[in-house]
Amino acid sequence: MEKKQIPDIIVSRLPVYLRALRHLQAQNQRTTSSQELGEQVGISAAQIRKDLSQFGEFGKQGTGYAIPFLVDKLREILQVEHVWDVALIGMGDMGHALARYPGFRDRGFRVAMVFDNDPAKIGEKVGEFDIQDAREMGKAILEAGIRVAMVCVPAAAAQAVTNQLVEAGIKAILNYASINLSVPAGVRVQYLDPSIGLQRMTYYLE
Amino acid sequence: MEKKQIPDIIVSRLPVYLRALRHLQAQNQRTTSSQELGEQVGISAAQIRKDLSQFGEFGKQGTGYAIPFLVDKLREILQVEHVWDVALIGMGDMGHALARYPGFRDRGFRVAMVFDNDPAKIGEKVGEFDIQDAREMGKAILEAGIRVAMVCVPAAAAQAVTNQLVEAGIKAILNYASINLSVPAGVRVQYLDPSIGLQRMTYYLE
Repeated sequence: MEKKQIPDIIVSRLPVYLRALRHLQAQNQRTTSSQELGEQVGISAAQIRKDLSQFGEFGKQGTGYAIPFLVDKLREILQVEHVWDVALIGMGDMGHALARYPGFRDRGFRVAMVFDNDPAKIGEKVGEFDIQDAREMGKAILEAGIRVAMVCVPAAAAQAVTNQLVEAGIKAILNYASINLSVPAGVRVQYLDPSIGLQRMTYYLE
Repeated sequence: MEKKQIPDIIVSRLPVYLRALRHLQAQNQRTTSSQELGEQVGISAAQIRKDLSQFGEFGKQGTGYAIPFLVDKLREILQVEHVWDVALIGMGDMGHALARYPGFRDRGFRVAMVFDNDPAKIGEKVGEFDIQDAREMGKAILEAGIRVAMVCVPAAAAQAVTNQLVEAGIKAILNYASINLSVPAGVRVQYLDPSIGLQRMTYYLE
């Protein structure tokens, strides 16, 4: 697949389509249309058809999309047909919530190890995990070949942690710290900052 | 301001600029350039200049942007120069983390009330809050005139909760449930779904 040629804005919509398709599937629906999917996700039917057509011919004129087929295809395109081990750094409130988060299941991810630098937390059990010493982080991630991490440390510590993660081979970081992270080319960061999500909406409030 | 004419994609970048400017400000920096800001946020200097020019003349050729001035302007544009009360629904792990989240402070938000429908949780204290009965939610939100809510309930309950919130006058919803929500025109939803954030990145992993 010539990945370089697909705009990231299109890639960013595929997980949203996948989530909506899984939701329809859970309701035992077998087929859908770009119209129906569009209503589910708040994106026009034309845009959905255009987005999906970048990756192949997934639907038929008149009969629409076979949901199990399209789900499989999207999981394959997004490379979540197998499960990625994820390292979680920072076991404050948000880290704890993510360690126990049920929404990774069946969506391609599994928290595999958790770290903190607080001696009072190291060794503590969170669900099925022992919190490991953050000083062991680089070595443990490298040895396990983990490529995906979630950063839940305070903003002041996030860049230093990120640098260590990058050195340990992490290529994808989900960042919960309220700070922009610098990473080298080839490493991606996504931001889940609740204040940013809220500020995007207050702009429109009257 | 003629808000209708600004594309949402531009609006979505303003909180990111604001976060980066606040970060520079915290380091006692007084001025910045679109180049420096661009490096901080991973967006081109030209794009930043173009985005900001939609709202006025904020910088000077040669001397760049005065950070305190631009921070004030962005806070005003995003309407976070005052503090919005936020209702939080669903006091599982994620709800607990958000109720205690320090990252709303100084960014325009304050969790003002928290709700759950679990009799075992109602009345329990979370930080400074008593968890209130979700059956009282609509009335309490309406009386307090709250416009902003965060939904942290299980996916199966999220649409029903959303319907109640909309009826109570909520206009902006930050949704943590792994489901697309239907809302009427005039109500906005932002999604903070960690699996979506991760899937956007695994696409690119080799």
